[in-house]
Amino acid sequence: METEGEIEKKEAAMAAEEEEKEEEEEAAVAGDVSLQELSKKLNDFAKERDWEQYHSPRNLLLAMIAEVGELSELFMWKGEVRKGLADWDEAEKEHLGEELSDVLLYLIRLSDICGVDLGDAATRKIVKNAVKYPAPSKGGA
Amino acid sequence: METEGEIEKKEAAMAAEEEEKEEEEEAAVAGDVSLQELSKKLNDFAKERDWEQYHSPRNLLLAMIAEVGELSELFMWKGEVRKGLADWDEAEKEHLGEELSDVLLYLIRLSDICGVDLGDAATRKIVKNAVKYPAPSKGGA
Amino acid sequence: METEGEIEKKEAAMAAEEEEKEEEEEAAVAGDVSLQELSKKLNDFAKERDWEQYHSPRNLLLAMIAEVGELSELFMWKGEVRKGLADWDEAEKEHLGEELSDVLLYLIRLSDICGVDLGDAATRKIVKNAVKYPAPSKGGA
Amino acid sequence: METEGEIEKKEAAMAAEEEEKEEEEEAAVAGDVSLQELSKKLNDFAKERDWEQYHSPRNLLLAMIAEVGELSELFMWKGEVRKGLADWDEAEKEHLGEELSDVLLYLIRLSDICGVDLGDAATRKIVKNAVKYPAPSKGGA
Repeated sequence: METEGEIEKKEAAMAAEEEEKEEEEEAAVAGDVSLQELSKKLNDFAKERDWEQYHSPRNLLLAMIAEVGELSELFMWKGEVRKGLADWDEAEKEHLGEELSDVLLYLIRLSDICGVDLGDAATRKIVKNAVKYPAPSKGGA
Repeated sequence: METEGEIEKKEAAMAAEEEEKEEEEEAAVAGDVSLQELSKKLNDFAKERDWEQYHSPRNLLLAMIAEVGELSELFMWKGEVRKGLADWDEAEKEHLGEELSDVLLYLIRLSDICGVDLGDAATRKIVKNAVKYPAPSKGGA
Repeated sequence: METEGEIEKKEAAMAAEEEEKEEEEEAAVAGDVSLQELSKKLNDFAKERDWEQYHSPRNLLLAMIAEVGELSELFMWKGEVRKGLADWDEAEKEHLGEELSDVLLYLIRLSDICGVDLGDAATRKIVKNAVKYPAPSKGGA
Repeated sequence: METEGEIEKKEAAMAAEEEEKEEEEEAAVAGDVSLQELSKKLNDFAKERDWEQYHSPRNLLLAMIAEVGELSELFMWKGEVRKGLADWDEAEKEHLGEELSDVLLYLIRLSDICGVDLGDAATRKIVKNAVKYPAPSKGGA
């Protein structure tokens, strides 16, 4: 039998979870998300489940590659696919969003575990690419 | 021989390029970047170089997979790698940041070309994962 | 109602299938198989199912990558894995054999569809590698 | 200064190497190669270079994935590619043969290190696929 104290504790835990779920759902419609926000969410997620022990760099890399495989599966028998996926039905597009996300989430987590600031690195990489492949002069004669 | 008008045009073009470069460098140190910002940068980048013609979904997917290969190359002969990459030298870490970025940039571009809002999809996926793998009750008895 | 002729035809078809299955099972225990034998089997397999229409180079490449993802899934949460897989149970090893095979079969089929003799190319590549990475002289002073 | 004995030893070593090279070149034109022959070659190759220490399952898996990346690179900006690669020049086809081979060689080596008989597993997988996807009856009414 549960004591009153135990019941109170459980209720508090359920309320906390409820609140967390609301926060997450709010975020889900918030529009523009940053890499650091996602990284933080993933970190909390792993911590709460005691999954940090599994998140070594090569484990995460292989997990990401597994997701790249699932992403490829969506494209494999389709021949050339047109921009915007005009011929795909809603369920397929939804599925695609999930597989793209899975790759992203493991990529962010891998970066984090390796101590790489992915947003910073990506921004620098775009600058580096701009130097490597200069755009044709826009106002040029 | 160049006319005065042509010289002026060139100078304007160079100034515009200079300004753009400054903006990009500023962004490079800006800290927290969003997926939509990166997506916009990549879109501008492709437009300026007339590369949109090559950015079909399966081309971008294969380009991303090529980058996943380069990322794997950094980890392939190392045996298990420890969190934080204590044994890696600075040049390797820098290289890793670039390869992680290359995967990210093609992933964002692929999502964009497919009409998927990646930040939104990823946020939703975290919520879905939280439902699938509930965290042990934090205040639980 | 089936006529006698139809029944005979069906029986002949079943006998042919039975025979084919026996041949395949025989092959399954035959020990050493060549790349050309596997290539031929895959070609027959596709022809009999009218699947040749789906076997374009990039479709097969993506199908192979999907299988590489499934293969990675078997290794992803394991940390470093020892040679010979001492800690794996029989079901996992069986599963591994299937995933390795799936990668192989799509790789062979991709080569075939591209007009590449994979066995020949692989043999040449080993020779090329031997030139690139010479072995320390065996009888050397 | 080298003694006569040393010179003899070196000559013997060079002759042995020469012979080995001839064998390998012979094999290179031998037509149909088996998975076990390739596996044996790779085993000897690693042993002669003392590379067995690097050939752990996950190292080899990641090396294979790196090669899958290089293979994808050949297909990434091409849009749909036709069977037989009609539009590819000879250098590209040669390069393709090498990348396909690199994937194959790491796949064979990975199987070997895991204790999987790849030829046997692949033959069984074809039989299993034939049961899963039965061919339309050939002589059917």
